[in-house]
Amino acid sequence: MKTAAIVLIGNELLSGKIVDENAAYAAVQFRAAGVSLRRIAVVPDEPDEIVAEVRRCSQAVDVVVTSGGVGPTHDDITLECIARAFDRRVLRDPALEDLLRAHFKDRLTEDHLRMADLPEGAELVFGGPIAWPVVKLGNVYILPGVPQIFRAKLDAILPAFRGGRFVLRSLYLQADEGRIAALLRDVESRLPVQIGSYPRFDGADHRVRVTVEARESAPVDEAVRLLVLQLPPEWVVRVDPPV
Amino acid sequence: MKTAAIVLIGNELLSGKIVDENAAYAAVQFRAAGVSLRRIAVVPDEPDEIVAEVRRCSQAVDVVVTSGGVGPTHDDITLECIARAFDRRVLRDPALEDLLRAHFKDRLTEDHLRMADLPEGAELVFGGPIAWPVVKLGNVYILPGVPQIFRAKLDAILPAFRGGRFVLRSLYLQADEGRIAALLRDVESRLPVQIGSYPRFDGADHRVRVTVEARESAPVDEAVRLLVLQLPPEWVVRVDPPV
Repeated sequence: MKTAAIVLIGNELLSGKIVDENAAYAAVQFRAAGVSLRRIAVVPDEPDEIVAEVRRCSQAVDVVVTSGGVGPTHDDITLECIARAFDRRVLRDPALEDLLRAHFKDRLTEDHLRMADLPEGAELVFGGPIAWPVVKLGNVYILPGVPQIFRAKLDAILPAFRGGRFVLRSLYLQADEGRIAALLRDVESRLPVQIGSYPRFDGADHRVRVTVEARESAPVDEAVRLLVLQLPPEWVVRVDPPV
Repeated sequence: MKTAAIVLIGNELLSGKIVDENAAYAAVQFRAAGVSLRRIAVVPDEPDEIVAEVRRCSQAVDVVVTSGGVGPTHDDITLECIARAFDRRVLRDPALEDLLRAHFKDRLTEDHLRMADLPEGAELVFGGPIAWPVVKLGNVYILPGVPQIFRAKLDAILPAFRGGRFVLRSLYLQADEGRIAALLRDVESRLPVQIGSYPRFDGADHRVRVTVEARESAPVDEAVRLLVLQLPPEWVVRVDPPV
């Protein structure tokens, strides 16, 4: 199974000016594609922070996706930072320069052209509804932060690292976590499943959601069977999907 | 100005099962309190990942807030990991044990008592509407992930590191970023302000929001004045707050 990390770049996310939507979207899409997301990091528009985080992620996982900092303004420094993370020079890419000149025509500025300044050795990944390609260096895919474009570009690159699926079933319980903890631990130790336990205190019809996950459905079903068998029936509000 | 970092702990955030609300809430609250949030990281329920990230943040900023992994179930390993991050033993805290016994009475389990197993030297920070205290070790505040409780606890601890304020004004423009980039760079180089530029492509009444920020209002107002003076008037949709 492939592993992934997301690096969100931008002061606006840390100052609360903008609420990120891209990480949550990517988490769901990676999961659906059978990719294990291992890490999300949000860093400011500062070279040292960006370089360190991209290096760390690039070494730790198979696929890194960055979000943000690829436009024409002074706070757009992602491309040059990723070049630095891989000890590459920055060179103006002729294909991107042509795209920019064709798009902006006589409104083109030198700042627009900064968007064509890529790390040496970067690849261009075309695809999806948007003509502008994703820039890729090593295992790092460099995506824009604007949510509509981020989503379109992520959808376009995901098929390249698709791998299998996850099976998930949830038990919604009227129970205190402390009284089911031993049972959860016991079932998880006996079967190749991952069990999660998520309490809530907001007056919903359940107090805990227990999730059971694996790559195959057989152990998930067996774990759910064991749990339901050993829980007092009045604690079990529902199982989703049901048996 | 104090600096801060947030570490969100939980597989459920990386698998897309649960959308985090705590980081966005904390970003806004830190900002309002005059604290500079420097980093957000989301890590899985795995000791090595939690220990490394907490150590990294604890050394880099003044205040670290963690979210999640403090309940009674097998996937709740934050307290023991933070002990490991600071090379501390884990000891059962008598005050917390008393609170748990008083609350759960004859329903108390050994798993509930895990919530009283704290890193040696941890402090208890009481305050806010919830009786259960925040556990603090060094500069790390260990908060639960349940949003209602996280928010109440963050609100309770924030006054301890409050410091000043930020002044923010926004210009909403019908303009292409590439054509204003040079102006933004020029104004930012002349005044002690931070300028951000955030494009959108969704049919709103503006194509770029330019933000101007500082600790004082005078340079912000001067920067806005310079920008408005040099932008073609038909590009300026509005300034918020207005002059």
